[in-house]
Amino acid sequence: MNQIVKVTTSTKEYEVIIGGGLHYGEEIAKVKKPCKVVVVSDDTVFSLYGDKCVNELKECGFEVSSFVFPNGEKSKNLSTAEQVLSFCAENGISKSDLLVALGGGVTGDLTGFVASVFLRGMEYVQCPTTLLAAIDSSVGGKTAVDLPQGKNLVGAFHQPLRVVCDTDTFKTLPAEVFSDGMAEAVKYGVIRDLELFEQFEKKEFDIAAMVQRCVQIKADIVGEDEFDTGVRKLLNFGHTVGHSIEKLSNYEVPHGSAVAIGMVVVTKAYEKANSLDNTMSERLIKTLKNYNLPVSCEYTLVDLAEQAISDKKRAGKKISVLLPETIGNSIIQDMTMDEWIAYIVNSGV
Amino acid sequence: MNQIVKVTTSTKEYEVIIGGGLHYGEEIAKVKKPCKVVVVSDDTVFSLYGDKCVNELKECGFEVSSFVFPNGEKSKNLSTAEQVLSFCAENGISKSDLLVALGGGVTGDLTGFVASVFLRGMEYVQCPTTLLAAIDSSVGGKTAVDLPQGKNLVGAFHQPLRVVCDTDTFKTLPAEVFSDGMAEAVKYGVIRDLELFEQFEKKEFDIAAMVQRCVQIKADIVGEDEFDTGVRKLLNFGHTVGHSIEKLSNYEVPHGSAVAIGMVVVTKAYEKANSLDNTMSERLIKTLKNYNLPVSCEYTLVDLAEQAISDKKRAGKKISVLLPETIGNSIIQDMTMDEWIAYIVNSGV
Repeated sequence: MNQIVKVTTSTKEYEVIIGGGLHYGEEIAKVKKPCKVVVVSDDTVFSLYGDKCVNELKECGFEVSSFVFPNGEKSKNLSTAEQVLSFCAENGISKSDLLVALGGGVTGDLTGFVASVFLRGMEYVQCPTTLLAAIDSSVGGKTAVDLPQGKNLVGAFHQPLRVVCDTDTFKTLPAEVFSDGMAEAVKYGVIRDLELFEQFEKKEFDIAAMVQRCVQIKADIVGEDEFDTGVRKLLNFGHTVGHSIEKLSNYEVPHGSAVAIGMVVVTKAYEKANSLDNTMSERLIKTLKNYNLPVSCEYTLVDLAEQAISDKKRAGKKISVLLPETIGNSIIQDMTMDEWIAYIVNSGV
Repeated sequence: MNQIVKVTTSTKEYEVIIGGGLHYGEEIAKVKKPCKVVVVSDDTVFSLYGDKCVNELKECGFEVSSFVFPNGEKSKNLSTAEQVLSFCAENGISKSDLLVALGGGVTGDLTGFVASVFLRGMEYVQCPTTLLAAIDSSVGGKTAVDLPQGKNLVGAFHQPLRVVCDTDTFKTLPAEVFSDGMAEAVKYGVIRDLELFEQFEKKEFDIAAMVQRCVQIKADIVGEDEFDTGVRKLLNFGHTVGHSIEKLSNYEVPHGSAVAIGMVVVTKAYEKANSLDNTMSERLIKTLKNYNLPVSCEYTLVDLAEQAISDKKRAGKKISVLLPETIGNSIIQDMTMDEWIAYIVNSGV
């Protein structure tokens, strides 16, 4: 039974379809008449699912070409974006045609960005093939590429026309890549959904239903705060510390692992600041370990603090910190960088 | 006496200030508290007005740096955009800071595009220094860069925070660049304002008042059709033929000259199709000649038609053609490319 989540934004209403063995052509044909389609994908994903995607689109009357780039975050830059844009121009793609992003977060972010700027904006469909992309980057319309100076510094808010998530594609994910996605899944449990967290704690869940639940939380939050000026900061739980870890490791530590450690650090700091026992952090640690995620790292709290300050340029700058009041219910607290550093470092974790 | 035009769009209301000897710092301080500012300009314009702009901004408490690129359409590409984006990242520019575009259409389009995508969108101010930029590209929020495959293929709709047009800057424009802008000014007269056209016919007008009148027409049209799906096509009078001339000449013929010829071709074709005498085209030709603009070119109507077909990829595609019913009142008519080619070629002009 396929799961559906509706996403409502100021510019668009669209559906996220989640299930095993979805037919890309049929799902896309529900929202788009036959037109030219460019399937954008990396070489790893395209070799696995490219033919299925292209053929299913052709079966439904679309005129399909494909652009394939080398797998990895290194491809998520303006140079690859320009190659896709030029490919579209050479193939006579018009504003009323369609891009399809087939892959993980890099592919989705890159393709969404290209769709947002080609001819000043055209439609695109997200077909996530990783758990992380399915529950996070494919929904909500944040598109981006990296600059040499940092990740996601160039982008746009541009909502997809539809998200088609075939959960069968997760079966070919390397174990550590699946775990990476589980860190973000656990995050949704902590910030908004105790019952979901308990499923992860017990390792008892159905994959499509779990993805549906995560996407529903994200959709609710995006619906309240499309342009990331308020409640959308909830989604950043564990991410400020996580980003510091990613940077210090020169991105050797994957995003999900970094976020897992970040969630543990912030949860322990919250317990310390509020003189709570460590029940919450222990449950979080146990659950993250269920999915082979790390819960500590080689960097000291001072290392992390210094990296965070250099990221934010000014120590006096205000940031919004997400704190877990209880599992399933988080709060946002504004602090200066100085206050936040003290909050983390004084926790002594 | 400064002239002011209010522009109202779905995302922003802003003012266009037009006058001689405007103070950039004071005008920008009216809409933005002191912050970091990057002045983006080409080497030609920056050598003339860069110091004035930077110093006036500093006088008003802004922290100013500047990015200067080589003058010319060749700089309007993703490579220059990436350089500006990296400059912003290296200088710690945040979403709440400001870009200032000081220059002509290339600078405005490029800077607006960078502002639309840096950190998923930040504010910018247009300070046009050419007549063409003042009455056309600086107002309305169409930003873009070129691809090797064609002009303006990559961009965004992103309205400026304010437009500050110091008409004193026109005094240093080469005569042919000023004329280039006059072609677009005459266009506004033909499509919407008989009285303005008559001023051009008699060569009797005040520069700031004339710019105000052109910008007011553009603002009215943009207010009705921000995203270019209807009445904004009015602004394309003479532009389909004009683009063909630009392309055939490998962009040796400047935009304004090409549009001037394009307006004459379409006006003659309209007279022919409706069995009118040539009063309208004669008045148009005489007026364009007042400003040393060309009214014919070396290409045949068949050359122009073939180029237009290759631009639009499909001969059966529908386009919206702008026709001058009378001077000061134009209509939009949808035709297939085939019909339009026949319309132009059969006119035998």
